[in-house]
Formats: sequence, structure tokens, C-alpha cells
Amino acid sequence: MDDRSVYKSIGREEDLKGISRRVSQISVSAIKQMPVLAREVAGAVSLGQGIPSFGTPAFITKVISEALTKDEWIGKYSLQPGLPELKHEIARYLRWKKGISVDAETELFVSCGAMEALAAGIATVVDRGDEVLIPTPNYASHIEQVLFAEGIPVFVPLLEEQGWRLDVEGFRKAITKKTRAIIICNPMNPTGAVFSKEDLLAVAQLALEKDLFVIADEAYDFLIYDNHEYLSCASIPELKDRLIGAFSFSKMYCMTGWRVGFMYASSKIINQALKVHDAFAICAPTVSQCAALAALRATNGKDGPGDNFIKNLVHALGQRRELTCARLDRLKSLFSYQIPRGAYYVFPKIVGSKINSMELAIRLLYEARVISIPGNGFGPSGEGHIRFSFGGTEDEINTAFDRIEEWAQINL
Amino acid sequence: MDDRSVYKSIGREEDLKGISRRVSQISVSAIKQMPVLAREVAGAVSLGQGIPSFGTPAFITKVISEALTKDEWIGKYSLQPGLPELKHEIARYLRWKKGISVDAETELFVSCGAMEALAAGIATVVDRGDEVLIPTPNYASHIEQVLFAEGIPVFVPLLEEQGWRLDVEGFRKAITKKTRAIIICNPMNPTGAVFSKEDLLAVAQLALEKDLFVIADEAYDFLIYDNHEYLSCASIPELKDRLIGAFSFSKMYCMTGWRVGFMYASSKIINQALKVHDAFAICAPTVSQCAALAALRATNGKDGPGDNFIKNLVHALGQRRELTCARLDRLKSLFSYQIPRGAYYVFPKIVGSKINSMELAIRLLYEARVISIPGNGFGPSGEGHIRFSFGGTEDEINTAFDRIEEWAQINL
Repeated sequence: MDDRSVYKSIGREEDLKGISRRVSQISVSAIKQMPVLAREVAGAVSLGQGIPSFGTPAFITKVISEALTKDEWIGKYSLQPGLPELKHEIARYLRWKKGISVDAETELFVSCGAMEALAAGIATVVDRGDEVLIPTPNYASHIEQVLFAEGIPVFVPLLEEQGWRLDVEGFRKAITKKTRAIIICNPMNPTGAVFSKEDLLAVAQLALEKDLFVIADEAYDFLIYDNHEYLSCASIPELKDRLIGAFSFSKMYCMTGWRVGFMYASSKIINQALKVHDAFAICAPTVSQCAALAALRATNGKDGPGDNFIKNLVHALGQRRELTCARLDRLKSLFSYQIPRGAYYVFPKIVGSKINSMELAIRLLYEARVISIPGNGFGPSGEGHIRFSFGGTEDEINTAFDRIEEWAQINL
Repeated sequence: MDDRSVYKSIGREEDLKGISRRVSQISVSAIKQMPVLAREVAGAVSLGQGIPSFGTPAFITKVISEALTKDEWIGKYSLQPGLPELKHEIARYLRWKKGISVDAETELFVSCGAMEALAAGIATVVDRGDEVLIPTPNYASHIEQVLFAEGIPVFVPLLEEQGWRLDVEGFRKAITKKTRAIIICNPMNPTGAVFSKEDLLAVAQLALEKDLFVIADEAYDFLIYDNHEYLSCASIPELKDRLIGAFSFSKMYCMTGWRVGFMYASSKIINQALKVHDAFAICAPTVSQCAALAALRATNGKDGPGDNFIKNLVHALGQRRELTCARLDRLKSLFSYQIPRGAYYVFPKIVGSKINSMELAIRLLYEARVISIPGNGFGPSGEGHIRFSFGGTEDEINTAFDRIEEWAQINL
């Protein structure tokens, strides 16, 4: 295997003449590149990209299949901020889920996934040279989005040995006059951490004190294990005017491919972020908005088909988490890890080898035929770790770990 | 009617404290705001937003309805640059449609509509302070996209009396050391102009000479009337390394709501623009990519269901154009106009009144219950004009013009 050609294909050597500063600064997310590389490897099994194995449930797809045969408007643009019915369902959902009262007309818009909401939100409040505090390791796309806005990511390491806990004092020390925002992904990709109420309230206090925005990515907010305590940043009333919340239907309803989510923020921020939404998307896909509407209509917090689907999903992923942890326990010579409390990722530390994360991911891909994501894609303290997703089936997880065990025995 | 409240709601009075420079500079596109305002007006008929009256055809929706019941992957992320099969179909389509040979792997990616391709392309090559030449009047979103990239739109008026012809000498004179790109929307929104081969080749020559990018929005490239000559910028071989082409399935297959299109450019540009695509979208909606795939598979340039659909669509829109022109001919006291050669817009000049375009659009909305788009949303020489779309049914067009005639008789 020629490492150089691999590095080249993941964007390490680029011709940047004529390319804007903002885009030149961004490196391609390893999360997206690994599956592309993996296409060359026949029979590779994936612990890589964060896609649950489940398909979009029938109570959603059935509505769309039928609508496609009779509702012509489903193929047409919606209003730019989203279908009014969907916006009202989202407000209703936020009411029972997060205990907050939201004006559907002015305090939210429907986006092309949480990603577009995050990118638009960051572009709305971050100027060239502004600093944005990002816990590290962190989801690579947030770093890209800050760089795209020509902001400066300021990394504040999480406290790994305390279960990837937020370092509130670290945040405080990192704040300068240029700090504009703090990004909080909770439950967290890639660590699986769920931040404590205490630490989140301390971060909120800091944001108030220092006049910062809190940019909250809560795409996994339904996926908490062991009845672990969970506080949504949207539920902190004091944060209301400083919060840019990004939410998604992707994980909760296994709808990653539909590209639909929403932003919740003050009407002032929504008004401005809609300019970005207009310039990039016009509107979220109408068909996907209809799917999201069907999903929410089937979910009431009690025993709707949506509720049962989510309950079963959380249960199944909980079992996969158990399995993944059990398999990692057998690989103590290679990895140590913090038990994930939410989401479907674990971010083990490489302990048994001096191999760096990219080299390990590449070797696991080509030599063990297992797709993983190297930790160096998740900010500076990601190096020395690797991200495994346990969204795949138990068979896939077992096959992947069988291969890793075999590979480790031969190679380490 | 309180004009001030209307202006306020379309973003004229904003609290911009804490909002990034790039977003502060953008004003909300009147194209998107008018339909939002129009929701207050019961029974308003629309000559506003550019949506053809036709639904997405059954040869597309049927494939999706079926796929939703059996293909689980349709609900999941695709590879970030798009479904490989779709990319190959697009390359095939470009071969027969534009006579060009395109590497499906490296020279295109599937975007959330042409809009995302344009926004990503502009963000990729335009830096703060860079100048971008934009013919005016021009589609408002291109102006927003340049402002979003912190570029400076430099407006070069089209030659209205010559059928909204490109002013090549005007472009030449407007070029400075800071000029990075020229935006060409052809067929053109909002004027309905189709630029001549001669003028486009002259623009291409200028781009080569002055080392500029040509950003081509060709969302209406199938929609040319009277067998008018049409040259795609993608078909000019010399431009290949300087072209950022944005194409769409939205208009050709009446798929505006699906949000799927693509960028065609050199592999160098595609590699960089994919960073923006990753940060904003991850991937285009998979379900929409499948719809685009079904559309292209039904289209071969001869007599596939796709070809017949497009042929009928062009025919029907041609008749609507005739009707619209006939109705405008009866309003000579209010409007003069250039006959549209492509797309489904006409951009009449207001001749019979000193009313400005926003005031006219607002009065037509509230007093005549007709939605139109004020010309001032299309760059500096848009003022004094109004955009009518003839994507609606003949009944809608007739109703709208009946109302405008009646309104004009009473008010002018």
C-alpha cells in the first residue's frame, strides 16, 4: 500500500491556487473520506460512518409512497422556512420533549439536516478572526464549519479519564475578547459522552457572563443509555437569546439520507440564518419535510408508532453498545475506552502501539477490512484514538471485531 | 396597509448586533419573501415564485414509491459526492446533451439543487473583497451568494433594448485586478433572455484573457423557445478549467421540491467545493438522488418517457409564454417588455406610472391579489421592472392578468 497516494486522496496535497482562503483552510473530513477509500476494499465491514443499520420505518415511508401518487405539491418548493404544518409539529414536539414554548413562525426553521442548521448558524454569528471554543475531540464538521466562517477554532480538551467530561475551567481560561461562541455536541460524537447537568449549567453561566453564543448540536438527544441524566441546552431558559440549536430527524427515525432537521433559536437569529438557508438551499426537500411530518405525527411521547420505534431503536443500540464494550474488553492490549453514555460511538485510546490514528485506520481498512475513523479527524486531542460506530448490526460488529482481533494478533 | 410593517417583515429594519458581516450584508431575496407575505392574502394568484404548475411526473414518483417499500438504503446517507450510479448517468447525459466528455468520478458532484452548487462554487473561489461581475438585472440569489462569500458584486447592465443582451464591452470595462469571476445565468432568470453564441464566446475569451472563473447557472438549459440558438458554457472547451457549472433537475422534471442538482467543474474545483458541500449538506438527499436517477434513466435524447415529458413541458410553457405576451400586449399603458427566449419569466418595464417596483408588487398583492416579484430584488437595473413567471396554468395566468387589468383601470 502506498501511504502517499492515500494521503493525497484525502486531501493532504492540494493545488490551492485560486481557491478562497476559507475553503483552503478546511481539510476534508476523514469521516466522509474513509467510506470513499473503502469502496476499493471488497467485503470491508463498517464501524465507520454514523448510519444505523435500520431503514426508515414503514410508518414514515408508507405515507410518502402514498403521497407521491396523489399530492403534486410534494415535488415542489415549500415555503423557504419550511412547511407550516411541520414547523407547528416541531414546536409541539419541543414543548413535550424539552419543556419549552417555541413560536413555530419565528423561532425555528426547517433545514437540510442538522448540518445545514449548524453551518448556517455558525456563518451567521462568526466573523473572520472570531474565536469559537470547541471541546476536543469533537465532531469534525463543526471544525470545518468554523473554518468555513473564517473563525478560529480554539480547542479545549475534554477530561477523558472523567468520561470525556466538559472542562468548564478550561473554557473559562480559553476565553478572550474575540471569543464569540461555544460549540456543544451532546450526546457527543465521537466520544459518546453525555455531559452533566452541572457542567452544562456552568457553561451556560459562562456564556451569559461573557456574552457568547452556545451552538448546540443535539442530533442524538433521544439516545441516552442507562437512564443517564440528560439536559438539553434548549431547556435552559437563560440561554434562549444566545442559543443556536441544531436538531435532526436523521438518527431518531433512521432518516439520515432524507436530509432534514431544524434550527431553534431566537427570532433574531432565525431571521438572519434564513438568509444563509436561502442562499444555500432555498428550502429543505419537501418530500423529506413530509417524512419528518409523518414521523412527528406518529410520536406523542407515549405510545405512538414513532415512540415505539424510538424505544426499540434505543434498546437495540443499547445492546450493540454492550456488545461493543464486551468486544473492546477483549482488546485491552490495543485499546482503553470510556463507556459511551449516549449516541452510538465509542472513542477508544490506542494503548498497545505507537501507531498513529490515521495509520491504524488505514491498516485496519486494507489489512483487516474494517472501516473506522481515525481520531486525528476530530481535533488535536483526537490523535491516539479511533472512532468506532456501533450503529451496525450485531453480526457486523462481531465480524469487525473478529477481524480486528485477528489482525492485532498477527501485527502487534 | 402599513408599508412600514411590510418593509420590516422583508428585512429592511434589522437588529444586526452580533451578526456576522457576511450575513449582515445580505438582504432577503424578495423572491422568497413575497410568497410568505402572500399567505396573508386569501385567494392570491401567483405569477411569483418559479414553480411550474406540473407535478413531478409519474415515471419518477412511481420508482420512488416502490423503492421506499423495498430499498432500505434509500433512507440513508449516500456517499458524500453522490450516488455513483447517478454520477455516471449525469456524465452520460452531459455527453449527449452538451457534447462533452466528463469524468463522473472527479468532475462533478450531486448537490442540493443548483443553488447549493452555486453557493459552494462561489464560496470556493471568491474571497473577501474579490469582485464578481454580475449582469443586471440578475437572479437575486447569485447576489446573495457573492455577498455571503464577502465578495463585491459588480453590476454590468444588460442591454434591455437588444433583448437583454450581454454587454461584453461593459464586462471588459468593469474588470479590475480584484475581479475573480463572471456569473452567467443562461437562459436567464429574471429576463427570459438567451444569450447569443457570439456574446458567450466573447465572455469566454475575456475570462481566459483575464484569468477569471465563469460561474454558469444553467438550470433552464432545456427550456428554449422558437428553436432559438443555445450555447451551454459547459460546451466551450477552452473554459473547462475556469468553469463552475450549476445544473438542476428542478425545472426540467418539475422537481423543485426535491432539491437535487449537480456541479460540473474541473477536478480541482470539485475537490475543494466538496469541502463546502460536506460542511453544509453531507450529501444530497438520497431519495432525491434516486428520483434524479429515475429521471435520467428515462431520458436518452430520443423518445424515452423523460424526453416526451420534457417535450410536452416545453410545448406547454411555450403556449403560456404566448398567452403571457398577449396579455402584456393589452397592458401597454403599464408595461413594455422584451419577449422571453427561454426560461419562464418575463421582466416588463413599468412605463405607465412612476410607481417603484416594490410598491407595485405590494399593491398588486394586496389590491389585485396577484403575486409578482419586484424588480429591485434583481440588482440595480432591476428597479422599474417587475418579474412575472408563466410557470402557472393558463387559467392562473388569465386570472392574474384579468385582475391586473382591472386594477390598472381603477388605479392608474
